[in-house]
Parts: sequence; structure tokens; C-alpha cells
Amino acid sequence: MNTQVAIIGAGPSGLLLGQLLHNAGIKTVILERQTPEYVLGRIRAGILENGTVELLREAGVARRMDAEGLIHHGVEFLFANQRIPVPLSELTGGKSVMVYGQTEVTRDLMEARQACGAETYYGVEQVQLHDLKSDRPSVTFVKNGETCRLECDFVAGCDGFHGVSRQSIPRDILREYESIWPFGWLGLLADTPPVNPELIYAHHERGFVLCSQRSLTRSRYYLQVPLSDRVEQWSDERFWGELRRRLPDELGQKLVTGHSLEKSIAPLRSYVVEPMQYGRMFLVGDAAHIVPPTGAKGLNLAVSDVNYLWRILRQFYHHGRVDLLARYSQLALNRVWKGERFSWFMTHLLHDFQDKSAFDRKMQEADRQYYLGSRAGLTTIAENYVGLPYETVE
Amino acid sequence: MNTQVAIIGAGPSGLLLGQLLHNAGIKTVILERQTPEYVLGRIRAGILENGTVELLREAGVARRMDAEGLIHHGVEFLFANQRIPVPLSELTGGKSVMVYGQTEVTRDLMEARQACGAETYYGVEQVQLHDLKSDRPSVTFVKNGETCRLECDFVAGCDGFHGVSRQSIPRDILREYESIWPFGWLGLLADTPPVNPELIYAHHERGFVLCSQRSLTRSRYYLQVPLSDRVEQWSDERFWGELRRRLPDELGQKLVTGHSLEKSIAPLRSYVVEPMQYGRMFLVGDAAHIVPPTGAKGLNLAVSDVNYLWRILRQFYHHGRVDLLARYSQLALNRVWKGERFSWFMTHLLHDFQDKSAFDRKMQEADRQYYLGSRAGLTTIAENYVGLPYETVE
Repeated sequence: MNTQVAIIGAGPSGLLLGQLLHNAGIKTVILERQTPEYVLGRIRAGILENGTVELLREAGVARRMDAEGLIHHGVEFLFANQRIPVPLSELTGGKSVMVYGQTEVTRDLMEARQACGAETYYGVEQVQLHDLKSDRPSVTFVKNGETCRLECDFVAGCDGFHGVSRQSIPRDILREYESIWPFGWLGLLADTPPVNPELIYAHHERGFVLCSQRSLTRSRYYLQVPLSDRVEQWSDERFWGELRRRLPDELGQKLVTGHSLEKSIAPLRSYVVEPMQYGRMFLVGDAAHIVPPTGAKGLNLAVSDVNYLWRILRQFYHHGRVDLLARYSQLALNRVWKGERFSWFMTHLLHDFQDKSAFDRKMQEADRQYYLGSRAGLTTIAENYVGLPYETVE
Repeated sequence: MNTQVAIIGAGPSGLLLGQLLHNAGIKTVILERQTPEYVLGRIRAGILENGTVELLREAGVARRMDAEGLIHHGVEFLFANQRIPVPLSELTGGKSVMVYGQTEVTRDLMEARQACGAETYYGVEQVQLHDLKSDRPSVTFVKNGETCRLECDFVAGCDGFHGVSRQSIPRDILREYESIWPFGWLGLLADTPPVNPELIYAHHERGFVLCSQRSLTRSRYYLQVPLSDRVEQWSDERFWGELRRRLPDELGQKLVTGHSLEKSIAPLRSYVVEPMQYGRMFLVGDAAHIVPPTGAKGLNLAVSDVNYLWRILRQFYHHGRVDLLARYSQLALNRVWKGERFSWFMTHLLHDFQDKSAFDRKMQEADRQYYLGSRAGLTTIAENYVGLPYETVE
């Protein structure tokens, strides 16, 4: 078997890269360890940056998103009993975010790939990458008990934090940066109307709260919890009670509770690996970087990587721009570090840190007072939230 | 002896408070432990916020400042070999800062006080505050071996971090917040023209640099140094050599060196005490808060306290507004914490932290890239640097 770009991983970044390349006449094969049902079963983020929305449109997979997604022109912050509206569009020259679940993005991309007939192999095992430093790398894998070899020009590692792609780079070449946060997020998904039209990011002395949503009838709520908590300790009743306790009365009274469709505790991690390329292999998304979910940057940073990699590969195939290949890692990382910074800033701003000194906790409070009380401060939040601009690839 | 407001300390905040009260027909006596010469000998900051300049004008002590001070409409940041001009006035609707040394401010205030004949006692010893919770507090002190008692309505504690005022508040009432920074500033004053028309704040892998100035012919430079360094280890030659090493060639070549008029190493401390009042005594400036010098907020925050205290006392004496007295601490602290935050932000942004994790150092770098690369980010720096607005006292 052979192709031009072998894509490891059929999550949203692998599928989007595949779609963009396919539309540009560049052949791809996608290899995925899991089944399509498993991939769709993962509950993830739901906030799409301005640039993510535009790239999905550019890929021609935005029809359902544009029909069903909710455009949000603002978000709201809550702290010290103050409600602070952040008018995203007003502060960013008209930009906005789209509420549309990652699961839905993935479903749309899967359907588009199936419709265009490009090859995708699900349930493959023992994926191995070979000859990445040569001009003709290859991928071997086992499908239905049979070993296959896929020859290609390039490998795109879209296979997540635990995938084989990053692990195929010699360890002495990689530099890893990591920070583990001293708390987790307890998330609950329910078919209830959201408590507020806009998302709410709240700091409360009992811990952070996020009131998010997937649609006008599906809510997603998160509570900061100790890392030692187990999801079994959190009945739906306890969750709703704690959520109400961390919201002002006027919102608590509006809260519609219901049976949880999903409930889980996730640790928060910040992680970046440099460089994001090795020979003919490029790392994309979670394979190279993880952000804490505060700020909703996970999927958006993966799409940012896809934006750069797709444009570079197109320039390579259509205009022979070999020179651009070496620029991928730096272009991607410039924006990744800004996304990591914003996620770190938001996490610091809004969570309760029991282990910080009294002075540092006062600095957190002063950050909230300043950034949420100054138009310039709010603009820094708004422009990062809707997504900083991409650099031009030329 | 008796007066209306007993002011402890004849530094710039005590003198400015005295002048404003005197102009409003309110009687003051200032007590100072040191001699006038000693007070004038202290080399301190030289950057006056917009609001500080206006309050000095309001006090009628701005003639020489307005003639000799240099209005700066911008500052410059340097990092990763980039020179980033920060157009303060453009970003803040026309505000600016004034380069005029604290020593000169103090000298002007001393002369004004002498001219108006208000009482000032230098060289007093054993200052003690009494009956602060009563309506008639008093101050005892020893002058020329004789014990004196000064009865008053109010005491203003303008006597610095080591003064008696804060120490006169029962310890169980005070809450102290403190952070000690893991490096010091080595400062050098010289009669040489500044290397650049605008101040330069630089991050360099060898450590922070500040190229400041007192006038067109007097420069003030600072280098980040380990806390363990002693000033005897730093000859003028070594200082100039290290400074040049931390500047880009184009600036290093312009650097005019010369004999040091003063050279010293100062530790960096962040400190705030709450509350800033106790009965009829009010803390002002360094008596209640210390900032690291990055951001030039020390004198400016002291003046901010004076601004609030003076207006409150005037309202009390002229309009019987007893209610305002209790509001001083919170009004002052709101702005103090924002000044502490900015000083902490600037110190984090620009210094080299050997003890930080690789991830946290990357976050520092991302902060520099973001704040100095975004107009909104630059605006947050500019509006804090020229000084956030005062709240109205009414």
C-alpha cells in the first residue's frame, strides 16, 4: 500500500487534516486503533474558536455546524459576587466563538471522509513508524491479524498523548515541559437547558465552576474537586447541590437539574514537547501538547496545528516548497505556547489553590480585580478566548 | 503642644500630606527621626505617575518639577533581541510619566514647608503613639533630651517600613502578606548621559536590566544579581562590562560609562499589611506596603495613599464627614493591591528565575511574547505604568 500522507489517528485533527488534504488532491490514509463508535463516545470540549470555525468551513464540513451550532458573542465571569459580562465581539472587532461539541465535529468529519471515499482503517493494532528520517517513511500495522505496510511521503502524528507518534522520536531529541495541577475537574453532562445563555466561568472560595453547554437543551457543568476525589463519591444530587452552592442565588434558582448522561473526573495537565517534527513526521494536537481545559483550547490548538501543517503540505505538493517543511514545528509551537499561556492564566485566575501562600492568593485576587475590571484586561482575555490570529504560511 | 494632624516621618509622603493639609487650612506637625540631610541623601525612584504629577501640582510644589522634569511618552522593552517600544501616551489616551528624582521631590517639599512656616521637628527620638483608639490621641518624643507631648486629632504614619506607626497597632489586628524575591538589584548612579532617550526594561538570560535616568546628564542603571552578591564585588568596570553584555550591540556601543556616584545592592520585597488604619491613626506608604522596584510603584503608591487620606481629612474638617474616616484603609488598599500586582507581574515578566521549573520559565517567555506582542497586552502594561485612576472620595 502507499499514499502521500499517512495520518495516525482518526480524531478530529486527523480527520480534518485528511479532509483538507483530500480536497487539495493530496492522497491520505488514516489509521485508527479504536472503532468509530469509541471515537464518537469520547465527551470533550465544545467551544470552537473563530479560526477553527473558519477552517472547518474551508474544509467544507461546516454545513451542520452552521445550522445547529450556537454563535456566542460573549462569556460571563463571576467572582466575589460580581457578574462580569465579557463582550467578546465588541472587544475583538466582531469575532465570536461557536458552541458545537467536539463529538459533533468528529461525526461531521467522519461522514465527509466516508462520502469522499478516502481510506480509513479502524481497529488497527501494533502501529509502528519506520524510516522517518528518510524521504520514504513507512507505517506498519496489523489489521484483522494481517501485517500491512503503508509507504508514504509524510506521517502526521494525530494519535494523542499516548499515541505511538511522539514515542517514535528518539528521546534525546525531545524536550518535554510539564506541569500537573493540584486539583481535578468533575464534569456532568445532562439534557437540561443551560442555566445561562452565555458560558459562565466562576471563581468561588469553594472552587472553580464552569457552566458550559452543548446546545439549548444540553448542559455541561464542571466543578473543581480535590484530585483525591472519586466519581463514585459524587451522586447527581451532591453535584447539583455543590454547583448551586457555588453560584449566586439568582442563578442557583434558575438551575434546572436532571439525570447525568455522563459524569467523570479529569486531572488537569499542562504539557508541551519540542520539537513537533522529526524527519518526515509531524506531531499534531494532543500528541505534542496538553492544556488544562480552562479556556477551551485543547481542540482549538489541535486545529491550529492542522492549519499550519495542511498549508505547508499543500505548498509542498503544489508548488514544490520543500523549504517550508522545516518551519512546521516553530510555526505550530509559537501559537501552542500562547494557548498554553492563556490556559495557565485562566486556570490560575479562577481556581482555588490551597497550597499557595497568602500573598500569592492575594495576587490571584488582584489579577481577577484588574483583568476583569479593566477594558484592556478584558480585551486580553477576549482576544485569546476567540483565538489569536494564525501566522501566514508563505 | 497640640495640632490637628501629627505626621510621623518627613519623607516625601509625610511632607506632601503636610503641604496639602496646610494649604487647606488644617494644622500639622511633622516629626522626623533623621536630619534633613540624611533624608535627602537617600537615593530612590525617579518615575512619577500621571496622578502623582497632578497631586504635586495640586499641592503647589510642582514649579521646579515642571521646569526640570522630563515628560516621557513611552518606555522600551527588550527581550530575545527584540526592541519593543511601548507608546504610553498613545495607549492611555494621552497620559505620560515624569522623570524627576524622589530626592528632588523631597527637596521641593522641604522648601515649601519651610516657606509656609509649618512646624517640622527633625532628629526626634523615642517617638511613641498613645490613645489611638480615642478621639484625642497623642505622640510623645524626645527632642534635645527633653520629652515632649503632642496632642492631636489624627496621626498619619508616614514613617516607613521600620517606623513606629505600624508597630503601634496590636499584632492580633494586623494581617501581613509578604513575598521575598530570590535576587537583588545592583544599582549604579553616574553623571553620564542616558544610553537611550526612553527608559529600557530588558530581559536577558544573564538577568534583568533597567536603564533609567534622573536627567539628561544623570543615568541610573540596575542589574539583577544573586542575593549573595556584595557590592564590594562589583567594581565600576565590572558593572559597566556586565551591563554592556546584557544589552544589544547597538545600545552597548552608545553606552557612556563613568565614575559611580552611588552603587548599592537592594533586595526585592513584596509586602502589604491590612488594615491600613487603627483608630485615629492611618498608615501611609512604606509603613504599610513595599513593592519590588520593577514598575516604579514605590513612591507612587505612597502618593496614592496621601491622595485618599488628604481628601478624607479635608472632607472631615471642612464638611464634618466623619463617615469617610473608616473608608481610608479599603480605598487605599484597593489601589495598593493593584500596584503590588503590577510590580509582581513586571518582576515575573523580566527577571531570570533559576529556581523555576522548565515549564514555568516557558510560561514567563510566553508572557513576554504575548504581552509585548499584543496591543491589548501592551495597553495593560501602559495603563498600569502611567498609573491606574484614583477612585473618587465622596
